[in-house]
Amino acid sequence: MAKKGDLLTVREDIRVVDATIRDGGLCNDFRFTDKFVKDLYHANVKAGVDYMEFGYKASKEIFKEENFGKWKFSNDDHIREVVGENDTNLKIAVMADVGRTDFKNDIIPKNESPIDLIRIATYINTIPAAVEMIEDAVKKGYETTINIMAVSKATREDIVSALEIFGKTPVNAFYIVDSYGALYPEQARDLADLYCEIADKYGKSVGVHAHNNQQLAFANTIEAMTHGVSYLDATVDGMGRGAGNCALELLLGFLKNPKYQVQPIIKIIEEHTSALRKQGVKWGYDIPYMLTGQYNTHPRPAISFTNENREDYYNFSNEIFDIING
Amino acid sequence: MAKKGDLLTVREDIRVVDATIRDGGLCNDFRFTDKFVKDLYHANVKAGVDYMEFGYKASKEIFKEENFGKWKFSNDDHIREVVGENDTNLKIAVMADVGRTDFKNDIIPKNESPIDLIRIATYINTIPAAVEMIEDAVKKGYETTINIMAVSKATREDIVSALEIFGKTPVNAFYIVDSYGALYPEQARDLADLYCEIADKYGKSVGVHAHNNQQLAFANTIEAMTHGVSYLDATVDGMGRGAGNCALELLLGFLKNPKYQVQPIIKIIEEHTSALRKQGVKWGYDIPYMLTGQYNTHPRPAISFTNENREDYYNFSNEIFDIING
Repeated sequence: MAKKGDLLTVREDIRVVDATIRDGGLCNDFRFTDKFVKDLYHANVKAGVDYMEFGYKASKEIFKEENFGKWKFSNDDHIREVVGENDTNLKIAVMADVGRTDFKNDIIPKNESPIDLIRIATYINTIPAAVEMIEDAVKKGYETTINIMAVSKATREDIVSALEIFGKTPVNAFYIVDSYGALYPEQARDLADLYCEIADKYGKSVGVHAHNNQQLAFANTIEAMTHGVSYLDATVDGMGRGAGNCALELLLGFLKNPKYQVQPIIKIIEEHTSALRKQGVKWGYDIPYMLTGQYNTHPRPAISFTNENREDYYNFSNEIFDIING
Repeated sequence: MAKKGDLLTVREDIRVVDATIRDGGLCNDFRFTDKFVKDLYHANVKAGVDYMEFGYKASKEIFKEENFGKWKFSNDDHIREVVGENDTNLKIAVMADVGRTDFKNDIIPKNESPIDLIRIATYINTIPAAVEMIEDAVKKGYETTINIMAVSKATREDIVSALEIFGKTPVNAFYIVDSYGALYPEQARDLADLYCEIADKYGKSVGVHAHNNQQLAFANTIEAMTHGVSYLDATVDGMGRGAGNCALELLLGFLKNPKYQVQPIIKIIEEHTSALRKQGVKWGYDIPYMLTGQYNTHPRPAISFTNENREDYYNFSNEIFDIING
C-alpha cells in the first residue's frame, strides 16, 4: 500500500483518541479525582483531541463497585457530571470488554447518553461475542470500533479471518492493539498495510493502540499513521498499564493540523500526572516491561515485579526466560 | 536505496558502539568510579558489543583537569588500567571534538595505545579542521569515524557537500548525529539513504547516534539500520546528555546475531546506572527535552530547567516558544 501523507501535510481523516482515564485507570484502579477528569476533559477540548475515552463499561456483576473508582464502570450520569451536554467538538468514548460488560443493560440508547463511541475490546478467539456487541451498540445509535488485542501473538491468517468477519458488521474502525508492546516499526507498518487493505474493501477506518515496553509506542503510532491508520490512541504522560502508551504530548507535537495544541496537555502533566507519580502510581518504561515486550508476552510478571518494589532486574531477566522457555 | 536485512536475519556489517562513558559522562562531568568503568568494560565484552567509547580526548589547555573526571581526557594509561592488553573482540574508541582536542600531542601512535578508533566530532562548518584530524589519526594507525553533529539543522545540500569531502579522506565511516533528538523515523530513513548512497560510492560505512527527546532514539536507530546503517551507537540505560540516547539493552534485545547478549547490560543497570539516578545524576526523556526536540533546537534550555529542579513545564513551554520565535 502506498504511504499516506508526509511530515508536512494535514490528513483530514486523523482522529486523536485520548485513552488516559481508561488505560491509565489500570494503574490506579480508576481512582481519579473529579478535578483530574474535569481538567482533562477541558484540556482535551482545547488541545483539539477528537475523542476522550472515559473508562470501561464493566459489568457490576463481575466487578464490585467498592473495589474501583467510578471510571471502571463509566456510568452515563457520571460522564454527564463532567461533560454536561458536551457542546464541543470532542466526542466521548468508553470501552466495553467482550465477556465483561453487561452491555444489554448498561449501554443505553445513544439519544439518552453523552457517549458517542463504544470501543469493543476482543481477543481473536471471542469474535462472535464481539460481533453481537457491535450490532447491539450500532442498533442503539453509537459509533463503534473493534479493538483486537494482543495482535503480536496472532497469525496473519487469523487476523485476515477476523477482519473479514468484522468488515461485514457495521463497525466503524478496526484497531491494531499491541497489548504486549512487542511490535517493531516494520511490523507496525506491515499490520497497518494489512488492516487498511481489508478496511478499504469494506469502507472502514483503522486505528492503532500501542504500548511503550520498547520505547516504540510513539514511533509505531506515527509509522502506522503514515501507512494509512487514522484513529491514533494516546494518553497524557503515556499513563497506561505497565510501560504505558503513546504519549499524547508527543503525538500532538508531531501532527501538523493546527487544531492540535500540545500546551493544554503539558498543563495536565504539570498539575496532575506528575502528582500521581509522586503519590506512587506507577507506569512507564522500565527493564521488566522491556523484557516482556522483547519476549512478546503479557506484562503480568513485570507488573508484579514493579508492584513488589523489586529492583533485581537481573534475577527478573532469568525468571522471565524460564517462564517463556520453561 | 533498497532496505537492507529484515527482522530475522543477521547483518555481518553491524557494529554496536557503547557510548555510555562518553555521552553519559556529560551528565556527571565524567566522574564514574573505576569499578563502574571496569564492570562496564567486562559487561560489554560478554554482551558482544563491538566498540566501547571511553570518553573525550579533551584538550587540557582548554579544560582544567580538576573540573572533570578522568574520562573527559581519556589518557591512554587510564584506559590501559581498565583494559590491560585488551585481549578481547571489543575495540576501544574515544571521541575528539574539532577545536577542543590537542590531537597532535594527545593522540599518540596506535601501536603505543590501547585505542582502536578515533571518533571525530564536527559541526558542518568546521570540515577542514575535521579533515586534518582524520588524516592525522589515520597516519598514526587508527580507525576513524566522522560524526557530523546537529544534522537535523543542516540542509541536504550542505550534507552532500560535507560527505563528498569526507568521502575523499581515509575515514572509515560517516555518522548521522541527531544531537537535538529532532528526527522522526521517516527522516532517519531518508538520511540513512542519503548517507549510504554517498558512502557506497567511496567504500565507507555509515553510523547513527540518536537522542531520545521524542522517545525515538531506538526507533530511529533500527530504522536507519534497516536502511543500510551499520555502526549503531547506544548507551546503558540510555544514559546520555539531556534526554539520553538509544538504550543499549533495547538494541541488543532487538539484534538477531546470537553474539549479542542483553543480560550483562541489565546487570550494569541494576548495579550501577540505577544507583547513579538515585544519587541525583539526571538524564532521560522529560517534557522540556521533548519540547526542544519538537522545536529542533539545542537542549540547553531544557538542561538548565532540569538542573534547577524546576517542574513548571507549562512556563517552560512558553519560554521555549519565545526563545524560538522571539
